[in-house]
Amino acid sequence: MRTLQVDLGERSYPIYIGGGLLGRAGEFFEQHGLAKKSPVLIVTDDHVAPLYLDTVTKSLSEQGYRVVSKVVKAGEKSKSLEVFEDVMTAAIEGGLDRHSAVVALGGGVVGDLAGFVAASYMRGVSFVQMPTTILAHDSSVGGKVAVNHRLAKNMIGAFHQPKMVLYDVDSLQTLPIREVRAGLSEMVKHGLIWNAAFADWCRQHTADLLALDPEALGYGLTQGCSIKAQVVSVDEREQGLRAILNLGHTLGHALEAIGGYGEFLHGEAISIGMAAAAKLAVNRGRDLSIYEETVSVLKGFGLPTAMPQQHDEHAIIAAMMHDKKFKEQQLVFVLPVEIGKVEIVADVTLDEVRRVIAELKEEGQHV
Amino acid sequence: MRTLQVDLGERSYPIYIGGGLLGRAGEFFEQHGLAKKSPVLIVTDDHVAPLYLDTVTKSLSEQGYRVVSKVVKAGEKSKSLEVFEDVMTAAIEGGLDRHSAVVALGGGVVGDLAGFVAASYMRGVSFVQMPTTILAHDSSVGGKVAVNHRLAKNMIGAFHQPKMVLYDVDSLQTLPIREVRAGLSEMVKHGLIWNAAFADWCRQHTADLLALDPEALGYGLTQGCSIKAQVVSVDEREQGLRAILNLGHTLGHALEAIGGYGEFLHGEAISIGMAAAAKLAVNRGRDLSIYEETVSVLKGFGLPTAMPQQHDEHAIIAAMMHDKKFKEQQLVFVLPVEIGKVEIVADVTLDEVRRVIAELKEEGQHV
Ligand SMILES: NC(=O)c1ccc[n+]([C@@H]2O[C@H](COP(=O)([O-])OP(=O)(O)OC[C@H]3O[C@@H](n4cnc5c(N)ncnc54)[C@H](O)[C@@H]3O)[C@@H](O)[C@H]2O)c1
Ligand SMILES: NC(=O)c1ccc[n+]([C@@H]2O[C@H](COP(=O)([O-])OP(=O)(O)OC[C@H]3O[C@@H](n4cnc5c(N)ncnc54)[C@H](O)[C@@H]3O)[C@@H](O)[C@H]2O)c1
Ligand SMILES: [Zn+2]
Ligand SMILES: [Zn+2]
Repeated sequence: MRTLQVDLGERSYPIYIGGGLLGRAGEFFEQHGLAKKSPVLIVTDDHVAPLYLDTVTKSLSEQGYRVVSKVVKAGEKSKSLEVFEDVMTAAIEGGLDRHSAVVALGGGVVGDLAGFVAASYMRGVSFVQMPTTILAHDSSVGGKVAVNHRLAKNMIGAFHQPKMVLYDVDSLQTLPIREVRAGLSEMVKHGLIWNAAFADWCRQHTADLLALDPEALGYGLTQGCSIKAQVVSVDEREQGLRAILNLGHTLGHALEAIGGYGEFLHGEAISIGMAAAAKLAVNRGRDLSIYEETVSVLKGFGLPTAMPQQHDEHAIIAAMMHDKKFKEQQLVFVLPVEIGKVEIVADVTLDEVRRVIAELKEEGQHV
Repeated sequence: MRTLQVDLGERSYPIYIGGGLLGRAGEFFEQHGLAKKSPVLIVTDDHVAPLYLDTVTKSLSEQGYRVVSKVVKAGEKSKSLEVFEDVMTAAIEGGLDRHSAVVALGGGVVGDLAGFVAASYMRGVSFVQMPTTILAHDSSVGGKVAVNHRLAKNMIGAFHQPKMVLYDVDSLQTLPIREVRAGLSEMVKHGLIWNAAFADWCRQHTADLLALDPEALGYGLTQGCSIKAQVVSVDEREQGLRAILNLGHTLGHALEAIGGYGEFLHGEAISIGMAAAAKLAVNRGRDLSIYEETVSVLKGFGLPTAMPQQHDEHAIIAAMMHDKKFKEQQLVFVLPVEIGKVEIVADVTLDEVRRVIAELKEEGQHV
C-alpha cells in the first residue's frame, strides 16, 4: 500500500492506494475516528453496487458501523439536482445526523455527486472517497464536488475535502475498456501539465496500462494522485495555479454539455480538448511537436483527438460561453508551453476557437 | 445609520442599519470593491420586486454595475431545490461569472435561497444581503443559508457569509402586520437567550414596535443583530454556543414542515416553540415564571403560544425526528434557565415532548 498526503492545514488527508482496501474499509474508518453512533451513507451506482457494495458494507458493519446505502443509475446524467435530491432523501430517511459520513463508492460521477451531498447535507458532514475508476484518481482528490446544470457542467457545487481517499486498485480490474481509456486521459493530463518524464512514462507504458498491469497501474495512479495533490495543496480554491488542472476542459466541458452528458465520456471529451489546446498553442506560435506529441500519446490510448463532425461550431461555442472560464467575450484556456508545462491565458478569442474547431474537424475526416 | 461588525477573521463584514439605504446600494457596492465587469444577480420575490427592485437596480446601474434579476414567488415554498435550480438557470443565462455577486433583496426566504445559490454557483461567489423584513435581522446575519427538503427544514445548505448586510429600515413600513409580528418573534428570542434587559425592553415597547416606530425599530433591530453577531463571531459553524440561537426551533421547524411550509410563518412556529421550550424547562424544575413571562411577551406581540389542535402529536414528533437536532431517540433542545439565559440539553425524551405538546394543546382550548 502506498500513502500520499494532501497538505491542506486542518483539512489535510491521506490517500491510500493499494489492493484489497475495500474489504478493510471498517478498519480505516475506525483509525480515522469516524463516528460509530451515526449512520454512514454509501452512495454508489448500479454498475458498482453489485460488484463492491457488499464488501464495503460488510467491512463497516463488522467494525460496528451502521450502514445505509443509495444506488443511483450509472452515468454522468446522475450528476443532476434531481438525483442529488434523491440522495438527500435517502440521507434523511436513513437518519444521518451531523456526525455521519457520506461515502462515495464509484467513479467520478458518484464522487462528485456524493461529495456535494456531503458538503450540503445539514450544511456539511464528513466525506470519504472510495474511487473505483482510473479517472477517479483525479476526481477523488482535491475537494471539488458538483452536479451539472442542463446548460453547463459542474455549475452547482462546493469545495469539500474528504477525510480520506481509499483507493482499492483491485477494483479497477472490472472496468470496461472504454472507461479504462477515458481514465487514462486524466493520467496523461497530469504528465502534460506538470512532468514531461511522467508523460513520457505514460507513453512507454501504454500497453501495460491498458492491460491493467497492477505494477504499472499502481505507479501511474500514485504519480497522478501525487501531482494532483501537490497542485491542490498550493491552491485549494483555484485562485491561481490550480487552474492548470483544467487543461482540455474548456472545450471538453462544452462537448459533454452539447452531447447531453451521454455522448462523450469525460475523459474522451477532455482528450479532444487537450488536442485542441495543443493546436491552439501551435497556432499562437508554439512548436508543432507539442501538438504532435500530445495527439500521439492520446491516440496510443485509443482516445479521440479529432472534433466530432455532428456538432457545429455554434453549438460548441455557445456551450463554452456558459462555462466558468468565459469572461468578456474571451475564454480562459490552459495551453501547453512544452510537454510537461502549461500556461493559463485569458485572452483566447472566439475566432481562434472557431479556427481550432475547424482544424480538428478536418483531422476527423482523415481518419 | 448604525454600523455593526461581524467579526469572523477574513470573513468579517459590516451590517449597515438605517433609512434610505436601498437607494444607495451602488455606493456601498463600490465602497466594498465589488466587481463591476461581472453581472450582479438580484434575487427577490414577487411581493418585494414591485416595491424595491427598481430602486436597487437603478442605484447599482448608475454606479456602473450590470444588473440581472430573478423574481421568485413569495413564501417559504420557494426555499426548495426546484426554485434553487430556476435561480441557477437565471444566473447562467445572465452570464454571471466567478467575480459576480448575488444579492438577496427580501426576507429570510429570499436570503436563505439566494445565499445557497451564492454558496454553490460555480462553487461560490460573493453574496450581499439586503433584508426587507424584521425577521431578516436574524436570517441575514451569520451566513447560514439553505433550502428545505420536503421531509425537513433547512436540510440542504451551506455556511456562506455575505460581504455586507444593507438593512434599509424604511422598507419595513410596507410589511403586512402578520409579518411584523412574526419578525418580532426572533427579536424577542434574542432577548430571551442573551439579555434579560433587552427582553424586557421588547415587552415595554411592544406597541411602538408593532406600530413600526422608526426609533424603537432601529434600536430593537440593532440590538437583535448585535446579539446575533456576537454569538456567531464566537462560533461560526455551530460547534457549540451558536446552538442557543435555536431556542424554539426544534419544535418550530417540525411545525413548519408538517404545515407544508405554508400554514405557519417561521416566526409564528418558533413562537409556539419558545413557549414549548419554556414549558419543558418548567416541567424539569425551572421556575414557572419563566414560562409565564415568555408567553406573556409573545402574546403581547399577537404571536401564537398554544399548540395547534389540528396536528396530532405523532406527526409533530415524526417531523422532529428528521430534524438536525435528533440523535439516538433523544432530542436536543435549547431550554431557558431564566429570562435572558438558556442552556442546551441533549437528553430530552420523546415522552417529555409528548407531555409538552399535550399541555400546549390544552392551552389552546382555553383561548
Ligand atoms: N471533482 C473533480 O475534481 C473531478 C476531476 C475529474 C473528473 N471529474 C468528474 O468525474 C466524472 C467522470 O468520472 P468517471 O470517469 O469515473 O465516471 P463514472 O463515475 O461514470 O464511472 C465510469 C463508468 O464505470 C463504471 N464503473 C465504475 N467503477 C467500476 C468498476 N470498478 N468496475 C466496473 N465498472 C465500474 C460506472 O458505473 C460508470 O458506468 C465526470 O463527471 C467528471 O466531471 C471530477
Ligand atoms: N439563515 C438564518 O440564519 C435564518 C434565521 C432565521 C430565519 N431564517 C429563515 O427565514 C425565513 C423567514 O423569513 P421571513 O419571515 O423574512 O420570510 P419571507 O422572506 O417569506 O418574508 C415574509 C413575507 O413578507 C414579504 N415581504 C418581504 N419584505 C417586504 C416588505 N418590505 N414589504 C412588504 N412585504 C414584504 C415577503 O414577500 C413574504 O411574503 C424562514 O425560511 C426561516 O427559516 C433563516
Ligand atoms: Zn477532468
Ligand atoms: Zn429562526
